[in-house]
Amino acid sequence: MNMAVYTEVSDEELIDFVGAYDIGDVVSFKGIAEGVENSNYLLQTTTGAYILTLYEKRVRESDLPYFIGFMEHLAAQGIDCPTPLHGRDGAALRKLCGRPAAIITFLEGMWPRRILPHHCAGLGTALAELHVAGASFDMQRKNDLSVTDWRPLYESCANRAHEVSKSLPGIVGPEIDFLEANWPTGLPSGVCHADLFPDNVFFLGDKLSGMIDFYFACNDFFAYDLGICLNAWCFERDGSFNVTKAQLMLSNYRKVRDFSDAELQALPLLARGSAIRFLLTRLYDWLNHPEGALVKPKDPLEYLAILQFHQQVQGPGEYGLG
Amino acid sequence: MNMAVYTEVSDEELIDFVGAYDIGDVVSFKGIAEGVENSNYLLQTTTGAYILTLYEKRVRESDLPYFIGFMEHLAAQGIDCPTPLHGRDGAALRKLCGRPAAIITFLEGMWPRRILPHHCAGLGTALAELHVAGASFDMQRKNDLSVTDWRPLYESCANRAHEVSKSLPGIVGPEIDFLEANWPTGLPSGVCHADLFPDNVFFLGDKLSGMIDFYFACNDFFAYDLGICLNAWCFERDGSFNVTKAQLMLSNYRKVRDFSDAELQALPLLARGSAIRFLLTRLYDWLNHPEGALVKPKDPLEYLAILQFHQQVQGPGEYGLG
Repeated sequence: MNMAVYTEVSDEELIDFVGAYDIGDVVSFKGIAEGVENSNYLLQTTTGAYILTLYEKRVRESDLPYFIGFMEHLAAQGIDCPTPLHGRDGAALRKLCGRPAAIITFLEGMWPRRILPHHCAGLGTALAELHVAGASFDMQRKNDLSVTDWRPLYESCANRAHEVSKSLPGIVGPEIDFLEANWPTGLPSGVCHADLFPDNVFFLGDKLSGMIDFYFACNDFFAYDLGICLNAWCFERDGSFNVTKAQLMLSNYRKVRDFSDAELQALPLLARGSAIRFLLTRLYDWLNHPEGALVKPKDPLEYLAILQFHQQVQGPGEYGLG
Repeated sequence: MNMAVYTEVSDEELIDFVGAYDIGDVVSFKGIAEGVENSNYLLQTTTGAYILTLYEKRVRESDLPYFIGFMEHLAAQGIDCPTPLHGRDGAALRKLCGRPAAIITFLEGMWPRRILPHHCAGLGTALAELHVAGASFDMQRKNDLSVTDWRPLYESCANRAHEVSKSLPGIVGPEIDFLEANWPTGLPSGVCHADLFPDNVFFLGDKLSGMIDFYFACNDFFAYDLGICLNAWCFERDGSFNVTKAQLMLSNYRKVRDFSDAELQALPLLARGSAIRFLLTRLYDWLNHPEGALVKPKDPLEYLAILQFHQQVQGPGEYGLG
């Protein structure tokens, strides 16, 4: 599992930092063993529970206003998600231990460790609502892990790809060629979450209580975001595709924002692209994680199996939609 | 820093488990990036915040009733510490994911990242109060990391000790000989915390709010527990001994439970023993931690420097007491 607290915050630095907000006095402060990109702390004060996030080096500081702005925008549109607090000076982003940092509201709920069909139904609705709510958000951020980024990313680790699996080089190179040649244009687009894995979606009982971790959000095709979710939610641990989950996700999405036939036809290709995107970042992390690192890298081969599933898909009907 | 969540608990298993208690419904559940022996989760329910601990393999299951019983005893004596909750069936210990598990009360406060003299003063008082309160606790648990345990522990890693430092073998072997030959008998004894490092002592503002993590508690000399605290709290990061901190710790301890001249005279030796104990367990962990492990082992050489300080101490006066 993921766990990471990269920056150690002293009690004195913390109390200074919290003093910039009207949220009372610090009562407790514990590092959370979740999230790989940033350091997250559960902060309890005399007024309640909050999350304190320190943005680590993998997050570009110049992107933070987009992420923070998008969370605020979503919350204002009635989407359940954490919202950054503003200090007495009005700022939501400040510095702690030399890193950009923010206090965000605490979102109740738990992410589902075992995905059941009803989770996928709720996810479909929530993702569509997110896409619709983003239409009125006017900042832009390019997806920097999209089709033009895969080749350079792969080239940076191609010479060692065989260490992970002998079959990888023969599959990944040609797949990138294919995706570059066939990547669609002109599909409906807007702000995507772009990392909506189960650990970023909370439920209270059967009800989806909100989404977190908007630090990959970017402007891209909505259907690509759907492809990411298909891959992250609808495959079983044994690699098999659960068409019931996919059908529930897609049909519930569609009730909120219907997708065009062009989007539907593009879905197998976009799902292949999403599989390559996560395969490549996992491959890179697998080959480059420091020995003895605190974070155990995720298995790139899980996404190789997902890619190979989509490669043999004949049409979107196989995702449960006619 | 330490971080560890060894056992992944599913939401369904959690809800079943919490259902055995009268603490309302689960609202949130997050792994805490602290503690190396057990998996700790912050559990929030509709009635408040709790800690859920899964006892991992390093904790002997047969010792758990002692640890749990001691926490309950201390709390009943008015000592600030977490207390295990009892389920509707009366049990405080049950099973979760195949491991022994308990829900304990949430203790407010933060452990001090930078130790200031006033922290040591508060610690001295709290440690003495713990020792006094333990007098009426009638269970027994032998310290299994005491003088007779050091030689076999060292022998299990002596052939690789030079990998950590060339000087280690020449110092540790003779030190164990010396400690075995000179270990005192008959000093006042009772229940010791035996692991009262700064991350196990919480403060709210300047006030000590409680102690946690009783999973090394055992029956031993009280002055040995003092030696552990001297080593854990009174050395600066550069290895220098801070006599002001030691003096505050010992003099405040003494106001609650005065120690005899025999205890005082034994303190340098007991502090050497404590240094060897942590040097050896750190050495063992350093040499035996799995590659790529999630928990970064602590540096054994920190305790070599502490040992060498005590080796040259001429008498207890050097700890700030006349």
